[in-house]
Amino acid sequence: MRATVIHGERDIRLEDVADPVLSTGGDAIVKVVAACVCGSDLWPYRGVTPTNEPHRIGHEFVGIVQEIGPDVARIAVGDFVIAPFYDCDNTCINCRNGVSTSCLAGGWWGSHDKIGGFADGAQGELVRVPHADGTLVATEQMPTAEQIPGLLTLADVMGTGHHAAVSAGVTTGSSVVVVGDGAVGLCAVIASKRLGASRIVMMSRNPERQALAREFGATDIIEQRGDDGVERIRELLDGIGADCVLECVGTKESMDQAIRGARPGGMVGYVGAPNGGPELPVRSLFNRNVGVNGGVASVRGYIEELLPDVLSGAIEPGRVFDLELPLTDVAEAYAAMDERRAIKVLLRP
Amino acid sequence: MRATVIHGERDIRLEDVADPVLSTGGDAIVKVVAACVCGSDLWPYRGVTPTNEPHRIGHEFVGIVQEIGPDVARIAVGDFVIAPFYDCDNTCINCRNGVSTSCLAGGWWGSHDKIGGFADGAQGELVRVPHADGTLVATEQMPTAEQIPGLLTLADVMGTGHHAAVSAGVTTGSSVVVVGDGAVGLCAVIASKRLGASRIVMMSRNPERQALAREFGATDIIEQRGDDGVERIRELLDGIGADCVLECVGTKESMDQAIRGARPGGMVGYVGAPNGGPELPVRSLFNRNVGVNGGVASVRGYIEELLPDVLSGAIEPGRVFDLELPLTDVAEAYAAMDERRAIKVLLRP
Repeated sequence: MRATVIHGERDIRLEDVADPVLSTGGDAIVKVVAACVCGSDLWPYRGVTPTNEPHRIGHEFVGIVQEIGPDVARIAVGDFVIAPFYDCDNTCINCRNGVSTSCLAGGWWGSHDKIGGFADGAQGELVRVPHADGTLVATEQMPTAEQIPGLLTLADVMGTGHHAAVSAGVTTGSSVVVVGDGAVGLCAVIASKRLGASRIVMMSRNPERQALAREFGATDIIEQRGDDGVERIRELLDGIGADCVLECVGTKESMDQAIRGARPGGMVGYVGAPNGGPELPVRSLFNRNVGVNGGVASVRGYIEELLPDVLSGAIEPGRVFDLELPLTDVAEAYAAMDERRAIKVLLRP
Repeated sequence: MRATVIHGERDIRLEDVADPVLSTGGDAIVKVVAACVCGSDLWPYRGVTPTNEPHRIGHEFVGIVQEIGPDVARIAVGDFVIAPFYDCDNTCINCRNGVSTSCLAGGWWGSHDKIGGFADGAQGELVRVPHADGTLVATEQMPTAEQIPGLLTLADVMGTGHHAAVSAGVTTGSSVVVVGDGAVGLCAVIASKRLGASRIVMMSRNPERQALAREFGATDIIEQRGDDGVERIRELLDGIGADCVLECVGTKESMDQAIRGARPGGMVGYVGAPNGGPELPVRSLFNRNVGVNGGVASVRGYIEELLPDVLSGAIEPGRVFDLELPLTDVAEAYAAMDERRAIKVLLRP
């Protein structure tokens, strides 16, 4: 089959690789219907995270089950399935606690799973899925072509935006600031509105993203950053800042903006993978009782909750895909996102 | 009147100072019935926080209202009152949000309040209380002598232990680890039991404090620290750690212990004033979805909630006072706490 391999900085290639084979009894082979490029894929693409040797890449996909191991019971051949951006058994204590990204048996696409060998990256034609019963969620019916992008967001960005909102405690009447106008930040706007926020402020300088944020439910846009951004947030929000700030970038600057944008007693929900490990300033958090909560989003647990709203069109996270390319153009997909010509690129094998 | 003045490292003196006078219309003069020494008073005592010039000290007291300004309506002369460790108007937006330690008009004992001049430190005979209606809580009846220590803990340590538990989300069935066996840590045990925790692990090496913690509701004691402490926490708690960890010290080591003692998806509630500003390791928080919440405890808002349980004897936080001294022996009170001969010292003017 063909699958995407990163060789180094700005060197993405679609290559012929071995087809995956079942190996654990509980795994499945899924034929990818749609995959995409994640903001976090850009870290190795840009060389921020070094690529020491060529490896498979990609971690978001939906597809059709092609083959299952003898121990798979919940998933059947022919099912249309959504995979989270990791595999998990959905039965261990961490999964039961709602933290399936810390699954004791789980792993990551494009790496070796703990018992069964290699689990393919998702930017390819086929993926071997460990713990298929735990990892995959099947839709009741075969989705329409129009529903595919929305379903694909449940693999990562919609669930991750939702995790930011849940981690920050967004609820009816909350004032929310979203830091980051990428796909996750835009989905965080959707999630905040869905959870009942009364005021949703998007920090963005990009007119197209501002417009989409407004359509998703943002009530205000702030273009300023740093001290000016904080001042503007406080001006808009009772002079004190937001109940909840959703940090969807992962840099030191964005986390600083988030912490300072929260009101005393407010909460920062963060899902931007920390880039280089900015440490959190405990004294300023302490003095103002600002909490920080979040992490690698446990999206598996959110798929069932969000799925009906995606299928019904009540929420439209699929609109974050503003470019669709065939898998053969995967290198262009990375370039378009790297250069911010696209918010998020959908790939079809 | 006489009041305590710190002159420098290990130099605590009871001195004659001017009696306070009403100045704002909304203030009151309270005759102190009981005060105490706080763990945070030990930072300047030990010279960790430098004392550049002599200043009044103390921030926990209960007493009887001696005089009120013309604008005071909720509090009357003769009332027995509990003061939180700061003053607040209890009406501003931050107070209404439950974060009275960020009161827009509030201040700290032993410093100048924003409109009315000096507000005395609490280790003295009299205290001028700004915003008396917002700051003070009067009991319905004059308390008995036996009730005084418990009521005094509502000024700080009991409310602060409760804040740690609330910030960490302790609820029915929670597993809790308490880091710190001082008065606040011991009160955090009381608070955790009161909120329904099913497992309460106290980290302590001190036999007397261990015993008191058990009487307050601790189900397990861990004497180990560092890596061994983390391992022991995980052994006791399903191999993964605690739902909630209450950090009641404020050092880098104690915060590290707290973060590592939380399970994936767990929450650290912290109330130990950060000593020297240990920064929080965002990557390890992120990877395990461990949240951090808390800060300067907004105890004013907890007084009404906790008061009935203190008066009824349902909780006995007053037992953290294991030494009682006249105010004239205030220097010995500091020494006894500094040398850990006492958990917490009650002072009577």
